[in-house]
Amino acid sequence: MRFPVIPPINEDKRKEAADRQNLLTKPTGSMGRLEDLSIDIAGMTGIVAPELKKRSVFLMAADHGITREGVSPYPAEVTPQMVMNFLNHGAAVNVLTRQSHSDVVIVDIGVNYKFPDLPGLLSRKVAMGTENMLEGPAMSHEQAEKALQTGMDVLNEAADRGLELAATGEMGIGNTTSAAAITAVLCGRAPVEVTGRGTGLDDAGLVRKIAIIEEILKERKPDPDDPMDILCKIGGFEIAGMAGVTIAAASRKIPLVMDGLISTAAAALAAAFVPEVRNYLIAGHRSPENGHRFLLEKLGKYPLLQLDMRVGEGTGAALAFNLVDAANNILREMATFDSAGISNR
Amino acid sequence: MRFPVIPPINEDKRKEAADRQNLLTKPTGSMGRLEDLSIDIAGMTGIVAPELKKRSVFLMAADHGITREGVSPYPAEVTPQMVMNFLNHGAAVNVLTRQSHSDVVIVDIGVNYKFPDLPGLLSRKVAMGTENMLEGPAMSHEQAEKALQTGMDVLNEAADRGLELAATGEMGIGNTTSAAAITAVLCGRAPVEVTGRGTGLDDAGLVRKIAIIEEILKERKPDPDDPMDILCKIGGFEIAGMAGVTIAAASRKIPLVMDGLISTAAAALAAAFVPEVRNYLIAGHRSPENGHRFLLEKLGKYPLLQLDMRVGEGTGAALAFNLVDAANNILREMATFDSAGISNR
Repeated sequence: MRFPVIPPINEDKRKEAADRQNLLTKPTGSMGRLEDLSIDIAGMTGIVAPELKKRSVFLMAADHGITREGVSPYPAEVTPQMVMNFLNHGAAVNVLTRQSHSDVVIVDIGVNYKFPDLPGLLSRKVAMGTENMLEGPAMSHEQAEKALQTGMDVLNEAADRGLELAATGEMGIGNTTSAAAITAVLCGRAPVEVTGRGTGLDDAGLVRKIAIIEEILKERKPDPDDPMDILCKIGGFEIAGMAGVTIAAASRKIPLVMDGLISTAAAALAAAFVPEVRNYLIAGHRSPENGHRFLLEKLGKYPLLQLDMRVGEGTGAALAFNLVDAANNILREMATFDSAGISNR
Repeated sequence: MRFPVIPPINEDKRKEAADRQNLLTKPTGSMGRLEDLSIDIAGMTGIVAPELKKRSVFLMAADHGITREGVSPYPAEVTPQMVMNFLNHGAAVNVLTRQSHSDVVIVDIGVNYKFPDLPGLLSRKVAMGTENMLEGPAMSHEQAEKALQTGMDVLNEAADRGLELAATGEMGIGNTTSAAAITAVLCGRAPVEVTGRGTGLDDAGLVRKIAIIEEILKERKPDPDDPMDILCKIGGFEIAGMAGVTIAAASRKIPLVMDGLISTAAAALAAAFVPEVRNYLIAGHRSPENGHRFLLEKLGKYPLLQLDMRVGEGTGAALAFNLVDAANNILREMATFDSAGISNR
């Protein structure tokens, strides 16, 4: 599969942003991680303190054959029900994107339900959910490429309409099982280290989920050095789609805010396909799901928020948009020592 | 000194908020600390998911006699210069309050500069800065009471005009020395454990600041069980004022978001005067200043943000207003499982 070229970071604009931070009326470096963020964004976009008004959470929904093994306390029918909830603006991500002035691009990339034509729903179904990865590969190579391409297409269409800031989010009952398995393989960790309670498994459910992931990895043997092999054997359509969104965002110099475990697993796969993608990633929120910190460490990203949220959907990323704004607003709007007539140290 | 009565938390409204959280279309408890925050706010205000539109950062400015000992890399004249910057909307807190739809109430409670009448500046000067606390008490008992009363008055005036959400912030070159000394006394810690670089001391400056605080505590011997004694001997006028704001906010059932080390030292003093004040406190941001975590532990509060910011002014609190909004918006705006027709676990 061919991926786009990722442009280099604009080092001149990084330096310009860093120099300007040092002129602002505050102790040197005192805005902490928001200063770093503003410098990173200048390097990604080539603009010092951009407004990034046109912003979207790309929310990809798909079903997972592995739910037949009882890995989630919620039934699989919740995936299409939640898609309807997104369309009706009733979900957590709708509330948080409203607050941070973002829209939500809702994509059916593999839900096991035939939606009618619905305003606001992008129908890009690759299949009616993945196969049960305990019994065979989750998807074919062709399907994986189609899902990746779908993500890239969706992002590129939005970029053509002026998109300036992106995030990935997902809905898919069972998808923390896929994401934890991917995390184990990409980070070289045992399933027990990277598997969490997802939407709320009890102790027995967690033990069972870990055992199932162990079995999947033993049966499927995904190659840690081959992201396409990982995606086909233990992936999900929404994960492939988000990986495609992530790659295309980097190719368009659009900062991409990662959400929780699943969104970050997709970003880590994207970076396994195209390492330079990493330069355009921002970690929005660290999830309490065990595997998330290993993925963030692997990507070398530190999360802006740590609020024990585990909703997915892009909620942590949507909330982090407020901090992206704060970082840029500080750099754009603050007075300088000179302009304000203030004595520097 | 007489302090107001603090009303009890509304336990019925806490329960109502918690019950409603469990009906929303998300896994139980999955909004993490934002759920806890929404429940706390319902208990404080007696309203489930209030909008808290009328909000202010109470920014108190004052000077410190201890600056004569060279405890800050910035000269004391920066205090009045920054007050002018606040009035001209050029400082970090101006940018962040603009973003979170808050105003800033700027109070001269003890700046060593005679301001003319200026629109937007509340002139409530107790004195032209504190005395050098290395040589004697920072302020008289009468001055401490006057500064506390000033803070209470300023908050009560705003509450009478409809204030719904408050934060404290400060400006005062030298005030991390006072706050670190207060922290050492209140938390029973050695100066070396609670003293930080403030606006940016180098290693030698930090060592010197620690030695000065050790000397101050040896000379002044503030009584750890007597907050008035602590305030008089090693306090600052802006710290006393913020303590007054904090006490009055609790008495009016107004949630108060703490900022960094100095704001939290003021809140800890407030809670030493009137323990029930603690019920109305929210920790906005954890500063990298060493002492801050001890104060937050003592108050039993976990910070919403940890971004290594060390500007003060109320910046961390203003940024946290966005999370207060997110917590309330989630509770107010999300669909329920019933209303959205979604299968629960």
